[in-house]
Amino acid sequence: MSALDELSWGAEGLVAAVAQDAASGRVLTVAWMNREALQATIDKGEAVYWSRSRQRLWHKGEQSGHVQKVRELRIDCDADAVLLQVEQVAGIACHTGRERCFFRKLEDGRWVTTDPVLKDPKLIYKDEDR
Amino acid sequence: MSALDELSWGAEGLVAAVAQDAASGRVLTVAWMNREALQATIDKGEAVYWSRSRQRLWHKGEQSGHVQKVRELRIDCDADAVLLQVEQVAGIACHTGRERCFFRKLEDGRWVTTDPVLKDPKLIYKDEDR
Repeated sequence: MSALDELSWGAEGLVAAVAQDAASGRVLTVAWMNREALQATIDKGEAVYWSRSRQRLWHKGEQSGHVQKVRELRIDCDADAVLLQVEQVAGIACHTGRERCFFRKLEDGRWVTTDPVLKDPKLIYKDEDR
Repeated sequence: MSALDELSWGAEGLVAAVAQDAASGRVLTVAWMNREALQATIDKGEAVYWSRSRQRLWHKGEQSGHVQKVRELRIDCDADAVLLQVEQVAGIACHTGRERCFFRKLEDGRWVTTDPVLKDPKLIYKDEDR
């Protein structure tokens, strides 16, 4: 697919992928995509990332069911970042059971957790997944 | 500053930095920060990135005047990405003269430019800056 050729895949073959809640506008997650992940995202209509820690494709929500349904895909001017507008199933994007991964805010020189856990991760995952 | 020790700076010493317009919620830019850049961002209250192409600190807007005034700083669960809520001076974040860098949207298999140029880049920059 020629649209994928336009991206600057970088030394590791990756681009940054930012998922934003299409309804609330909240930034939920920042992850990574290689060419295969972006192609899979387009084909499925759900976010598929490249897990750097596990070195494999990661269909987000594959275990938790908390998939991200893609409503829009954008690239930036450098073509080395992707922005996804998503419908976050269950309203939980973070493996900690929170709405978003950005649940810590800088206040007076330290990171303060501002967001509640909506669901106990032990109830979300059978084994390692995020 | 101990808050900076909590970040996972990665192999290259960088984290991804997403700037979101504090008023509109639009994602404006994705860039990179090293430890020095994040410290400078905190100290100045304006976004300072690490330019990978120029291999130097980049105080965004240093030439254009289009600085990003930081209203809030967050980190994600992995501590390898930063989210900035910013007031984008002049309402132009992209070096192409557009509001945001994510001005291209996937439509029927190709990237379509959806956002207008608000100001001619030639009128913004004296020489190379973004």
